[in-house]
Amino acid sequence: MPRILHVAAAQMGPNQRADSRTDILARMIELLDEAAGQGAQLVVFPELAFTTFFPRWLLQPGEVDGYFEPAMPNPQVAALFERARERRVGFYVGFAELAEGRRFNTSITVGPDGRTLGKYRKVHLPGSVEPRPGDRFQQLEKRYFDYGDLGFPAFWGPAEWHDPVLGMLVCNDRRWPEAWRCYGLQGIELMLIGYNSAAYDPNGGTSENEALRTFHSTLAVQANAYMNATWAVSVAKAGNEDGSGLIGGSCIVDPNGTVVAQATTLGDEVLVAAIDLDACRQGKEKMFNFAAHRRPQHYRAIVDQIGAVLPPRPATTDERRSA
Amino acid sequence: MPRILHVAAAQMGPNQRADSRTDILARMIELLDEAAGQGAQLVVFPELAFTTFFPRWLLQPGEVDGYFEPAMPNPQVAALFERARERRVGFYVGFAELAEGRRFNTSITVGPDGRTLGKYRKVHLPGSVEPRPGDRFQQLEKRYFDYGDLGFPAFWGPAEWHDPVLGMLVCNDRRWPEAWRCYGLQGIELMLIGYNSAAYDPNGGTSENEALRTFHSTLAVQANAYMNATWAVSVAKAGNEDGSGLIGGSCIVDPNGTVVAQATTLGDEVLVAAIDLDACRQGKEKMFNFAAHRRPQHYRAIVDQIGAVLPPRPATTDERRSA
Repeated sequence: MPRILHVAAAQMGPNQRADSRTDILARMIELLDEAAGQGAQLVVFPELAFTTFFPRWLLQPGEVDGYFEPAMPNPQVAALFERARERRVGFYVGFAELAEGRRFNTSITVGPDGRTLGKYRKVHLPGSVEPRPGDRFQQLEKRYFDYGDLGFPAFWGPAEWHDPVLGMLVCNDRRWPEAWRCYGLQGIELMLIGYNSAAYDPNGGTSENEALRTFHSTLAVQANAYMNATWAVSVAKAGNEDGSGLIGGSCIVDPNGTVVAQATTLGDEVLVAAIDLDACRQGKEKMFNFAAHRRPQHYRAIVDQIGAVLPPRPATTDERRSA
Repeated sequence: MPRILHVAAAQMGPNQRADSRTDILARMIELLDEAAGQGAQLVVFPELAFTTFFPRWLLQPGEVDGYFEPAMPNPQVAALFERARERRVGFYVGFAELAEGRRFNTSITVGPDGRTLGKYRKVHLPGSVEPRPGDRFQQLEKRYFDYGDLGFPAFWGPAEWHDPVLGMLVCNDRRWPEAWRCYGLQGIELMLIGYNSAAYDPNGGTSENEALRTFHSTLAVQANAYMNATWAVSVAKAGNEDGSGLIGGSCIVDPNGTVVAQATTLGDEVLVAAIDLDACRQGKEKMFNFAAHRRPQHYRAIVDQIGAVLPPRPATTDERRSA
């Protein structure tokens, strides 16, 4: 018998710096209502869903504080939690977490009863600590956030969702196969991802545009879903946010890596799909039966090294180079 | 100044069991000539290029021996090596290697001077040791081959190729991100892959067909090329081989994961592309600057575990399940 879960991607258009929290909450509740109206049991919101993507700016310490949530839930977001519990809808949401003086780029998944099922803190912080001189756009996540310290903790969804094994990533994490594999090794059946991805290269490169960046985003989710035999819901905050472009392309991807639904706008947009969690089984039992086919004795470099180390040059090359 | 290398995918149609080695060599030389005529400096042939894909059958020990090469080169393949050296073309080729009683699914890359630049032995052997009772098709690589014992050894190409850092995989390896990452951690700029992939699920699953299997093959190469900022040339033996279908879809993929050329037939077919090895630099220096962004302290499960281990169930789930 199939294990059907109705999931939704709740893509958000931009949150301008000047937008009030009340207005942003109202949009999120509207997206939740729309998804619930289409039968969704689990709604995925973006990374840093309650605010603008503030790491694009060099801010003063006092300015930064206002973007962080000292607790979750808290009075500023309570209306979303209440509406979700009323409708018995769970959700994933990303936010800037202030935790005893430490700051994380965090996501949580809330169950249909309002209980928090899992928490994740972004491990792969992109960007830099210091602004890059002369660059129009900055990416200062390494300045404002501590590196996630929870690893990649898979967790169980409730019985009314058919007991799925769930995982969470935040934005840039989705490009790192190590992160997916750590969840794959816990048997996950559904990966939840929120992102804010620039429509230009946020690292200062010049060869990437919006179409290519959207392609990268979808490609990474498709292949890592396939290689770990899991469903994935990957959700953008999109559009022109405070003068900086963010890609859209929110998508729901099956364990074959096939896109089953994808956003077509850069605004608030809901995608809903009925997914069969048992569609993961063929991959997990056959091609990606890890116990049968993985060879960790050859993977040591993945944990023993951080950066790339070129192989030794053959003598002939050395001689030629030094000649 | 760009570092341009002209590479070719030399997709092969089927090698029937009844085909003579002379006939197969003649086809390979024709493909090599065609690629060289289009300017190719490096030609990639498939996995087990000199024979039919014999692991689909349960064979007697005496029958198996005939598929293995006791040395490389050897008189049965010398004509290919000679023609390549005459034309100053290098090549990747896959073959069944007999090495002091051990048997590997091996590939080598030969330089334009005929010297072997690198050797790789397939780490991710798919299939089973014993035939699956009742299944029409078998996949017995685990029976006929020892697991590769060389790890993932990147190596340098010659100066006339602009000193590229090269890597090799064989078939199923391309679906395993650990293998790509071990090469990525050596700074590879060009991955060479040969494959024989069934047009049905060789593991006995029932939900995969030729189109989906070809999609998987291309997707895995695209995303892993992107996530390791490397070029890739991935080459099939394709078509109806001794009554079993093999997918085609040979492709040349850039460091953005974009397919720049792809085969359209299931027969002998040559693709040639001029690739700029420096196109890897943006990825290696920005998004996938491993030294800046990887967090190996959180990747331990990749080497500490082989198979998947589910997370602990919350008490409520346990109680419900046992109720």
